[in-house]
Formats: sequence, C-alpha cells, structure tokens
Amino acid sequence: MSETPKTPILDRVRLPSDLKALNDRELKKLADELRAETISAVSVTGGHLGAGLGVVELTVALHAVFDAPRDKIIWDVGHQCYPHKILTGRRDRIRTLRTKGGLSGFTKRSESPYDPFGAGHSSTSISAAVGFAAARELGAATGDAIAVIGDGAMTGGMAFEAMNHAGHLGKRLFVVLNDNEMSIAPPVGALSAYLTRLYAEGPMQDLKAVAKGAVSLLPEPLQEGARRAKEMLKGMAVGGTLFEALGFTYVGPVDGHDLDALLPLLRMLKARATGPVLIHVLTKKGKGYAPAESRPDGGHATNRFDVATGVQVKAPSNAPNYTKVFAESLVKEAARDEKIVAVTAAMPEGTGLNLFAERFPRRCFDVGIAEQHAVTFSAGLAAAGMKPFCAIYSTFLQRGYDQIVHDVAVQRLPVRFAIDRAGLVGADGATHAGSFDIGFMSSLPGMVVMAAADEAELVHMVATAAVHDEGPIAFRYPRGEGMGVEMPEAGVPLEIGKGRIVAEGARVAILSYGTRLAEVLKAREALAARGLAPTVADARFVKPLDTELILRLVAEHEAILTIEEGAIGGFGSHVAQFLAENGVFDRGFRFRSMVLPDTFIDHASPEDMYRSAGMNAPEIEAKVLELLGVAVAKRA
Amino acid sequence: MSETPKTPILDRVRLPSDLKALNDRELKKLADELRAETISAVSVTGGHLGAGLGVVELTVALHAVFDAPRDKIIWDVGHQCYPHKILTGRRDRIRTLRTKGGLSGFTKRSESPYDPFGAGHSSTSISAAVGFAAARELGAATGDAIAVIGDGAMTGGMAFEAMNHAGHLGKRLFVVLNDNEMSIAPPVGALSAYLTRLYAEGPMQDLKAVAKGAVSLLPEPLQEGARRAKEMLKGMAVGGTLFEALGFTYVGPVDGHDLDALLPLLRMLKARATGPVLIHVLTKKGKGYAPAESRPDGGHATNRFDVATGVQVKAPSNAPNYTKVFAESLVKEAARDEKIVAVTAAMPEGTGLNLFAERFPRRCFDVGIAEQHAVTFSAGLAAAGMKPFCAIYSTFLQRGYDQIVHDVAVQRLPVRFAIDRAGLVGADGATHAGSFDIGFMSSLPGMVVMAAADEAELVHMVATAAVHDEGPIAFRYPRGEGMGVEMPEAGVPLEIGKGRIVAEGARVAILSYGTRLAEVLKAREALAARGLAPTVADARFVKPLDTELILRLVAEHEAILTIEEGAIGGFGSHVAQFLAENGVFDRGFRFRSMVLPDTFIDHASPEDMYRSAGMNAPEIEAKVLELLGVAVAKRA
Repeated sequence: MSETPKTPILDRVRLPSDLKALNDRELKKLADELRAETISAVSVTGGHLGAGLGVVELTVALHAVFDAPRDKIIWDVGHQCYPHKILTGRRDRIRTLRTKGGLSGFTKRSESPYDPFGAGHSSTSISAAVGFAAARELGAATGDAIAVIGDGAMTGGMAFEAMNHAGHLGKRLFVVLNDNEMSIAPPVGALSAYLTRLYAEGPMQDLKAVAKGAVSLLPEPLQEGARRAKEMLKGMAVGGTLFEALGFTYVGPVDGHDLDALLPLLRMLKARATGPVLIHVLTKKGKGYAPAESRPDGGHATNRFDVATGVQVKAPSNAPNYTKVFAESLVKEAARDEKIVAVTAAMPEGTGLNLFAERFPRRCFDVGIAEQHAVTFSAGLAAAGMKPFCAIYSTFLQRGYDQIVHDVAVQRLPVRFAIDRAGLVGADGATHAGSFDIGFMSSLPGMVVMAAADEAELVHMVATAAVHDEGPIAFRYPRGEGMGVEMPEAGVPLEIGKGRIVAEGARVAILSYGTRLAEVLKAREALAARGLAPTVADARFVKPLDTELILRLVAEHEAILTIEEGAIGGFGSHVAQFLAENGVFDRGFRFRSMVLPDTFIDHASPEDMYRSAGMNAPEIEAKVLELLGVAVAKRA
Repeated sequence: MSETPKTPILDRVRLPSDLKALNDRELKKLADELRAETISAVSVTGGHLGAGLGVVELTVALHAVFDAPRDKIIWDVGHQCYPHKILTGRRDRIRTLRTKGGLSGFTKRSESPYDPFGAGHSSTSISAAVGFAAARELGAATGDAIAVIGDGAMTGGMAFEAMNHAGHLGKRLFVVLNDNEMSIAPPVGALSAYLTRLYAEGPMQDLKAVAKGAVSLLPEPLQEGARRAKEMLKGMAVGGTLFEALGFTYVGPVDGHDLDALLPLLRMLKARATGPVLIHVLTKKGKGYAPAESRPDGGHATNRFDVATGVQVKAPSNAPNYTKVFAESLVKEAARDEKIVAVTAAMPEGTGLNLFAERFPRRCFDVGIAEQHAVTFSAGLAAAGMKPFCAIYSTFLQRGYDQIVHDVAVQRLPVRFAIDRAGLVGADGATHAGSFDIGFMSSLPGMVVMAAADEAELVHMVATAAVHDEGPIAFRYPRGEGMGVEMPEAGVPLEIGKGRIVAEGARVAILSYGTRLAEVLKAREALAARGLAPTVADARFVKPLDTELILRLVAEHEAILTIEEGAIGGFGSHVAQFLAENGVFDRGFRFRSMVLPDTFIDHASPEDMYRSAGMNAPEIEAKVLELLGVAVAKRA
C-alpha cells in the first residue's frame, strides 16, 4: 500500500532502554517517526489506528522516563498499544498484527515482558496497577505501576472501584487519564462533561492541585508560594477534583502531544511522587494523520488502507451482516410498539443501535462503558413497563452477569438481551470470543435463550423477543455477514421452545444450535453423496428445550449429534441431561456433542478459528461417520 | 422473647397513605413505635437489625412525603427494609421474616407493590431508579424514583456507572446516600474518608450546594441572596462535591434521625427538584437500641435475642464452620509462605479473613464492595509474583465473572479463588444462593476447580491452592457447620485432578462433588440395608476431571449417578460430555445427574431448601433404585 517510511532515529531503538540515549529533541523526532511507522503498519494490517496515533507522544514519554519492564506500563483495553509494541522489541513483527500467528492487537503477557498485564476489555488497568503497587510494598521485585486509561474506560465501574481502593491504600501509583476528544462513540455520561469543564478551567485547577497536596511534587523554589496559596484556600479542602475526592493527587490537564510538557512533568512525578497521582492528559484520536483525524471516530478501527489518501480496502460483501439485520428488525418492531426501547454500553455503531437512535432518539440509551448498569437499568425500564432491548456483545455481557442473575432473572423481568458477536470473532482474539454465553444464560431459571441459525431467523427472534412479556429472553448471533438466505418481509414470532426440522434424513440426527447450521448442511451434502444423509434440525432454543422434537429424533434415529458455537455447559449439556433423565442412554442410544475446545483460541480469521476448534463441515462429517461406526482415515 | 410493644399510632397505619393524616409530631411518635416494633420482630426472627434501625426516621419521612407505590422507593441491598415492610401492609407477617413461607429478609417484587425493585446484592438501586425515571419521561405511569443507598454500597462500581448516566440524562431523580457510621465492616476506601470530610465541613458545603445550582430549590425569599453567593463563587464551578462532578445537585449532610430536618428537606425537594439530586443523610446503624449501637457492626445481623438485654440465642455448634476452617488453614499456609496474601470485598468477617488480617495485617486487603476490582487486583498481585487468595461468596463472585475470564483465566494467572457460601444458603434466599459457580468456573480453559466434601477436605484444598502456581485454581465450600469429621494436623496438597473412592459397593457408583457427600453416605446406608450398597466416590475436581476414576467406575458398575450443589452445566455436564465422547452411552451404560432444580428457591432453612431441591438422602436413594430398576412407591 505504501513504502516503509524513513525512520533514522527509530531504527536505532530496539528496546525502551535505547531511549535513554536520546535527548528531548531526538525524542520529538522519534515520535514523528513512530507515528509514520504506525500508520504504515496499520495500512497493511488494518486494526485500531486512531487510539495508537493519539498516544504516540505519551508512549515515547513514558518509555523515556520510566524503566520498563521493571516499571509496569499497563495500557487499558490495549488497542492503543501499537506504538508501544514498536518500541518494545516487536517492530519486526508489527506488520503481522491481528493475523494468525502474528502479534495480537492488544497487549498480551505471553507476547512480551513489556506487556505486564494484557487486556482487550476496558477499565481493568487501574486494578492491575494497584495489584503491582501493593505487591511492591510487600517486597515484590517490581518498580512503578502506571495505568494508562481513556476517559471512556474511566466510566466503567471497576475503574472507580480501583481508584477508591488506590486512594485508600495511599501508595505511590500513576494513573494517566488519556482524555480523548472522542472515544469509540461520542462521549456520554456526566464524567465526560466534567472533564471538559476541568480543562476549560485549567488555571484554577492548577491552583487547587497545589492546594490539595501537590506541594511536595513541585521544585523547591516554588514550594513556599504554593504553601501560601494552600493557606489561602484553606476551608476549601472538600472541593478539588473528583479524583482528589478519591485520594489522588490531580495533575493537569496537560497537552498529550507536547513532549516539552509531558517529559518534565513525568520526570518530576517520577522523582517526587509518594502517593497515588492522576495525570490528566489531553490527546486527540488519530492525531497527525488527516484521514483519521477527520473521521468522526478518530479512525478508531480500520481495514487496510492507502496511506496517501486514507481510502480503506473493503472486501465485497455478499450478505447483510447480522448486526444490521438486528438493528433494522428492531427499528421495525419499535415502529409498531412504542414501549420498545434500546440500551447500549458505548457501542452504538458496534451493535447497530445508531440506526435505532436515528429513528427514535429518545428511546435509545447509550450508558457509556457500563455493562453492569446497562443490564440493571434495563431491568428498571422493564419494571416500569417498558420493553428494553439490551444489546451487548457476548464477551462484554460477562461484565453484567451478576445483574442478569440478580436483577433480571430472579425478578423475571422481561429484559430482551441481544447478544452480538457470539462465538469466535476473529482478529480480536481470545479476549473477545463469545464462548460462554450459552452456558451462563441457559443455567438461569426462567430465562428463554435462543440462537439464530441465519439472518432470517434473527429477524424472527427479534419479533419473538418483542412480544415476549412473561420474563427475560435472549438471542445470540455471530459477528459478520449472514448466510445470504432469503429475507422475510417481516418477523414472525416463534413458538417459545420449538425447534424445526431443516432436512429429513436417516440414522443420525444433527441438532444444531446457532450458525454452525451452514457447516452442518455442507457436511450433510458430503454425507448424502455416500448415501448417509443425516436428519438436520435447528434447535432455535436451548431454553426451554424442545423436548418433543428431541424425543422424536431419538425415536427415529440411532444417534444424535449436537453442535454449538460455545463452551461446554451449554446446549449439548442441556440435551444430555434431558436424554439421561429420560433413560435414553440406558438402552444404548448414541450421543455426541460438539462444543468449543477447552482452550482460549488466539486471533486468526473466524474460519481459521473454527477450523482449529474442529467445528467445520469436515469435522462434522467425521463425527457423523464415527457415530455410524464407519471407519475413516483421520484427516491430516 | 418479649411482649409486643404498645404502638397506638402505628396501629392506625396500614399503608403509607395513612401517614398523610399524621402531623409531624405524630410522625415522630410513629418513628419511635416503628423502631420498637422492628426490635420486637427481629428479636423473634433474627435477621438484619442494625440497618433497619438506622433508617427508621428516613423510612417514615420518605413514606410521609412521597406517594408509594406510584413513587418508587428502592432500597439498595434491601436488608434495611423491615421498617418499610411494617409500614407497607406487611406488619401482620413481620414475625415470619426469613422463615419458610414468610416474608423475605430483602425487598421483593413478588411480595408487595411497595417493593418496586427487589435486591439482596448491593449497589443496584441507582441503576433501577434511573430505569424508572427514564421510563417516566417516555410516558410510563410511574412517579418519582428514589434510590436509598449506603455509603458502603456506593463504592460498588455499578453505582458509579449509574450516577454517571443519571447525571448525563439530567432527569429528576433522587439518590439518598445513607451514610452509616459503619457498614458491615469498618468502612474502607477513599470514598469513606471523603464523606467524613464532607460532613466535617458542612457549612462550607451548604454554600457550595447553593452555588452549584440548588438555587431553584430554595424558597423564593432566599433565592436572591443565594444568587449573589453563587456570583461570589464564580470560577469555582469545577469544585464542589464528587457528586456534583457527576451532574447531581448535592444536598446535605442532614441528620437522618431528625425528622424536623428530614421532612422539610424532602418536601422542598419533592416540590422543586428538576434534575438528579443526591441527598446526603447521616445515620447510625442500630440507632435507638443500645445493645445494637454498642456492637462494633451496629448489630448488622443477629440471631433471635432478648429485647431487654440484647443477648442472642445461639444454637449449640457441633463442628467448626467452613469459613473458620478456611481462614485458619490459610493462616497456617501463610505462616509458611510469605507470598500468600488475601483479598476480600468488604466481607472480612463473613469470609473469615479478619483472622488472617489480625495475624498478617499488611498482607490482607479489604477493597470495599468491589468484587470486580477484587478479582483483577488479585490478578495484578499474581502477575507481580504474589499468591493471592481471593475469598468471595459464590453469589457475589458473579460480580467478578468477566474479570475471572478476561484477567485471570485468559492470562493463566495463579489467583486462588476461595468460594464461600456455595450451594443453597438458607434464610437469605434466592438472591444469595451459590448455584452457578460450578458451571461458570469449570467452563473456563485452564481453571482448576475443586469442591470440598467436608471440612477436612477444605484444609487440603487450601494447601493444594497454596502450592499451585501454574494457573488459577478455585475451591468451593458451603455456608455453615462442617460434618464434624476428624481434622488433619496440617493440610496436604491433593494431586490435581484426582478424586477418591469413599466406600466400595456394587452395581451403581455415586460420584459426588462437594458436601452432598454426607447425604450420599446416608442414602448408601439405607441402600445397604436392602443389600444394594453403591460405591461412593468423591470427585474433588470438576476440572480437570478424574477420567481414570470415571472409567474405572464405568468398568465396574452398571450405572453412575453424579450429584452436586449447583445448577445444570457443571459437574454432571462435564461427566456426561466425557462419557459421551468415550462412547460409553453407545453400549447402554446408565447415567443420571442430580443438579439443583431449574427454579430460584425461596428462603427457608438450608435443609428445607435441599429437600425442595430433591437432593437429600431419600431422593438420592430413590434415584439409585430407579437406576437399578427397582420399583418404589413415590414419596409424598
């Protein structure tokens, strides 16, 4: 796409220790080269661009001042870490980002000692940093702990929990609040408005920081004046920033793209800080690359692109993607029923709810990165008689698990969970896999749990959820494009707990839950060529289970094979329990259950991931042959 | 224990609407009578006493001023709701609290329209209130939303998430911050210190509240002066309380036991508030009952007691309870290994870690009500080379589920999870049941998952976890007393993934996971009397599964029955998957799995709950007979 940029200073940097030999002027040049290298790399691989460009100077400054890997620099979420990877011995592999066998798109402990704590989900960095700091106080061989966290991630409740604890402990610790002008979506929440006020009133703030205890951090000559300012402000001790309320010394705001400001500040703090310090840094997503800066999301995530123009290379799309099908279906239902409202946790684009918000702005709620609140807020809406659709990726819904149990399921409140990105997700890797939702949702009493086999089914499931007022209901669907099936004019509510026969066959019945159905049908074709076509059914529901359908399959076949894009404990386990309780195994009925393997699968294409999970057509075919007792040569 | 107190005014109150007929003098008397009635009731039933006594005046004031059930009063956690229940049509049943078929010890939607949102876990009330307020703005027939939340619960991250969202929405909403002098444990966290400063500087604070936008809330004549005060303070807009930073109007602090202060304040706010308001109320746990006030925890939870003396009736104890066994074992291990540290989320007494903290104060961390942070903080400690034991009740561990997946399991960090209160817990009911941890822990790749069959096994599992540095490990144990087995001198690490045969028998093998083992052995005795003694094995591990043991049991028996104190998707599901994959079912092997039923089981004694779950010796015996094909009359 573009030639590798000229980077004479960067070429001299293999590890962060090499930065110690550079003067401030050279560090500034290094930042420029690092930015060019980052743009060049992402133009080849695609990935998260805007966040990394926003922290180029911060990355240089942190590595110039602190001593990684002894000092622990912990990047929250980790999607802004490409410049960090380039400076920490991984430049030679930076153009393998997010590809199979290549570098992860996030920080990862197993990848480098310079990644002391991996991430992928947001708001975890301060907790981890407090852990490192507490261990250091107990004698662990670890240096400073520095969490770098965005203003969006700061709205996640666990960041607040960690601040509260850090302020209580009072140990030396650095939290760099990376205040982007723009997180994934336009910033929401009172905190965002507050931060804007904070930097709008910068000078006043500086005085307060002084008054509140930053005196010891100042160079000697300034201390006396500062002490007097503090006296003046006595009685105001309760004021100060939100961060000071939590026991932190607040420093800032400082321009995160100005190394002349960042370097002296970090050096001063490194030399003098004794307790927890919050450093408020202002940055701009996509900084220094016009095509990214000009995008509304700062070039958050991108496909491969042309560096000169910023034009992205897009794969031609064959079918509508599931996210869009969900959103358009929900808009249709909401047009008919004004009680339908939608809730997202900082993912309006990702979940497709931006389409809903355009049409029904008052009925769409973006609560920020706050899945716990999203779920219980939805429960509150349901308790007040609304019909909330709470749309959260499978992997992030884990954050709201207790709220699903305690606030939704125990109370039987009719919250509708739209679980996007269910199953393996590709380039985002293990931290983003939606492997566990079938299990953790279907073990809950009273929860109705569905999975869409294709995009037409998804339309019907949205319709089903829209009319299901008796209790909570959930439906999952994967990342990416649909199967290309014919789409219905309108969604038709499904009968709760009823599956469907997709293709009649003999001897073996494959009972599929979710979008492996397409691979199952491919396997069926191959088997049919041998005269061994199995029956194929789409379960639609794991809860309630279609026991009538299952008993019919038992009666008419020798064996049942279940398949699902999830870990053990889900659909196959429910079917097995039912078969066991009904004495089906007693008489020698054969049963197998294909589930995700018991490993975290690294980033690759979704197809590759399912291949390594052994859940594509060839493996399904082999499993059926095994059930039939047909000897086959093992595939290489 | 005591006579019912004389309560002439309370006797005239059947529902909150009856309070409207009372003048302020009568409301004060009502509060006194309500306090006496609460003490009298809890003296009979036991339960949470201190929290309720702390909010007697607040309960009266809220019901006198607001109009429940149209206005939604949402009690966080709900354990302070006994006075509320007495005023809302449930006085006639108040002496059935926490007993089978009686009133719940928490708020509960199915119990009364005056409980608009049930609870049990902490920090959920603001989210629910925001849901009600948002629904009202969209036309739902609901009045004001009032969340009443303690200072401890305010440290839970989701409370912060909800505040951030509420401040952003800007809709009318009341959060009553019930600032106890004492939550369950002495308050921890920076927030607690901050609140103390807030009320230490009360007058200044009032001025700030005025300056920050409370002007419109004041009676007309005061507004002009207030406006001038606001002018004076211009430029200070960034200051103010933490709550103002989040977009709330802050009012307080006000004495929560002074109805002369509470009533006018709430009336003024009800008449004039337009946006979100935080009302900072100071109360004292156990207020007005000397024996409770004098306890360090304010009489948080109590057995039945004598009203005159406060002396509790304690059931004689036969065996050490699991919590204490865990704590003492951990202290022993920690004495040998200085890298062992302990983490609790505001439950030092409940988890027994107070014993650990006494011995090793610097190595014990109470992070506040903050399970998410507790888990990731533990992960940080582990990443720094420490050996953290993170002790959290099963039901509360649900709050840290995503952190277990994302920060611990994906990174294979050796965090040790001590899962107390696993299984059914008795009087605390459905919200506190530890039903799901076997499933959600054992589906995680690389997690070692154990359950103790008795208190001696627990000692060995603590020792096992202490030396297991290869990755995360978890062990669960129930509430209450052990079995009374002989205790080992010291814990001996178990071989990972190995179970044990407890009693040899024939035809059927019962493979038990956890403390149902005692009931299994009782069932075995009854079966032995018929000449049908089964083999009994203790699995110890669900992950990794002892496949060798299972195959041996298969080889030597006709049938296997698994049993566990958990929902579907756990131990039985792992065994079934293994049996299926190994073709064991193909040849007609019988298998049954006893798991918790698919319902939320209401409060009762643990024995009653397991009876209704069908998991006591008689049901186990019946299941074995079913497997043996022995016809038996169904039990009534």
